[in-house]
Amino acid sequence: MPKRFYLGIDMGGTHIKIAVVNSEGKILEETMTDTDVEAKPLDIAVSIVEKARGLKHYSSVKSIGIGIAGDIDCFRGFVRFSPNLPKWKNVALKSIFEKLTGKNAFVDNDANTAAIGAFWLDAKAKPDSLVCVTLGTGVGGGLIFNKKLYRGASCTAGEIGHMTIDPSGLRCKCGNKGCAETFIGAKYLSAYAKELLKNRKSEIINDLLSQNNSKLTPKLLYEAAAKGDKTAVEVWNYAGQKLGILLAGIINFVNPEVIVLCGGISRTGKFIIEPAKKEIEKRAFASASKVCKIIVSNYTQKLGVVGAAMLADQ
Amino acid sequence: MPKRFYLGIDMGGTHIKIAVVNSEGKILEETMTDTDVEAKPLDIAVSIVEKARGLKHYSSVKSIGIGIAGDIDCFRGFVRFSPNLPKWKNVALKSIFEKLTGKNAFVDNDANTAAIGAFWLDAKAKPDSLVCVTLGTGVGGGLIFNKKLYRGASCTAGEIGHMTIDPSGLRCKCGNKGCAETFIGAKYLSAYAKELLKNRKSEIINDLLSQNNSKLTPKLLYEAAAKGDKTAVEVWNYAGQKLGILLAGIINFVNPEVIVLCGGISRTGKFIIEPAKKEIEKRAFASASKVCKIIVSNYTQKLGVVGAAMLADQ
Repeated sequence: MPKRFYLGIDMGGTHIKIAVVNSEGKILEETMTDTDVEAKPLDIAVSIVEKARGLKHYSSVKSIGIGIAGDIDCFRGFVRFSPNLPKWKNVALKSIFEKLTGKNAFVDNDANTAAIGAFWLDAKAKPDSLVCVTLGTGVGGGLIFNKKLYRGASCTAGEIGHMTIDPSGLRCKCGNKGCAETFIGAKYLSAYAKELLKNRKSEIINDLLSQNNSKLTPKLLYEAAAKGDKTAVEVWNYAGQKLGILLAGIINFVNPEVIVLCGGISRTGKFIIEPAKKEIEKRAFASASKVCKIIVSNYTQKLGVVGAAMLADQ
Repeated sequence: MPKRFYLGIDMGGTHIKIAVVNSEGKILEETMTDTDVEAKPLDIAVSIVEKARGLKHYSSVKSIGIGIAGDIDCFRGFVRFSPNLPKWKNVALKSIFEKLTGKNAFVDNDANTAAIGAFWLDAKAKPDSLVCVTLGTGVGGGLIFNKKLYRGASCTAGEIGHMTIDPSGLRCKCGNKGCAETFIGAKYLSAYAKELLKNRKSEIINDLLSQNNSKLTPKLLYEAAAKGDKTAVEVWNYAGQKLGILLAGIINFVNPEVIVLCGGISRTGKFIIEPAKKEIEKRAFASASKVCKIIVSNYTQKLGVVGAAMLADQ
């Protein structure tokens, strides 16, 4: 049987990653281009296809998959709105790429492509069920059931950042109060740390802040925690506890084989995972949490492009 | 093609329902026997099979499905523990029925069989995704994805009654705090009503309580609400709001086509549904809630036995 290759395109706000991936989810070749947020959809697509044609396996590519943040109609391949390309409205991205290349194209949101990527890159045993949790500015999720992406009735399944974990919590940009994202989204964590630092001093955090005029980001809080800063550790304990409430709900609800954590905040590793696991122990059914492996992705930067390529397989 | 018939057995704490069901989920014949909680598993199985053999379509039955409350190993057909038959421990129910009848047997928990039943009886359009929510003493759930039962990695998927909806809530029997069940499970609702009635009087509730020495159950609270009792309506508004938080989370997470509410408390209809819908409007993504039909089952008493019969089809 001839080998099947797929082209993956991960359209981020700064860069667009492009890769040829084989049918085992392995990247064979990759390239990149900058995201021109002012350009029209067709012009961006033309420049992506030009880059892709420069890849030596391009002619063997069977289909093209595109992952992009935002409100995506994955069934029709429409980008209704993307925060990364705010000038785009109702862009028929699937059709644009199909016309340009003569190949089948698939479009889905970046949380879904991350889940497919995690299935191929992180979950070596190819589990029946996997929940991928993206921890960054936003908190997102993608669901793999029966080894395939599960999209839901209107392609919005996996919005786990907007499940209520404490109804008395803060107002979220989605309109709800107490969403998981209002506890563990990056800017909320930074705000929580600032609040704590109003009434106490931290030399470690102050030193890190004064270096290069840094801001109080989750990355800085991770560095501070790694240096033993108590306030930073407290912030991660708080975040881990809230993450644990969310994950325990997910475990009781869909009893997944694997949960993969990815995105910038997942890199804090044990600082957030250990308190999350303690909370899961308190809140999830033992039979379900026992069988659920929780791992941090080793491929955060690759998940999107590999998952996009493998959209053809869903 | 010859018609396929299936035998369904719904093992409740008081009665055992037995029915022959066709491949469209329609009951052709049904019967019943009392549950002898003192009897040994084999003796109960023998009496069920005897009853079933009295049904005129029994000889055409291809397989047998059994639904039972509790901790069930659905993959091996084991009843680890059932609250309805508390003396049973690790009963190989599948194997007992297969030896007695020479037919294939399947065993699953009653929330899963209710979900399959709701798919066949309530959801006429056969949706890709359906979440069945059982509202009674406990709060349970069963999940249909891609038109089939989704069981999870250890057969415990659907434990939506034990998702945290408010971490400051009461301690649940599962060990967690603030489970959905601690707000909308029958005994918690009764306790909430009692608490309200400490500081106020309700003639309607008092009248209903004095009739036949009744207790303050959800059924009585429903009757009181139907007669216009303000406290009872307040209890249902509270329950509906909490149910809405749970359902909004489910909608954002798995974006189902249909949610079916069943079980005793679902019969309160609009008293619980209307406030639940208001809460969903506040908390769920509009694109997901717009496509999600929320219905009250018209077949609460039949779901278990039909779903059990259709286990063979999963």
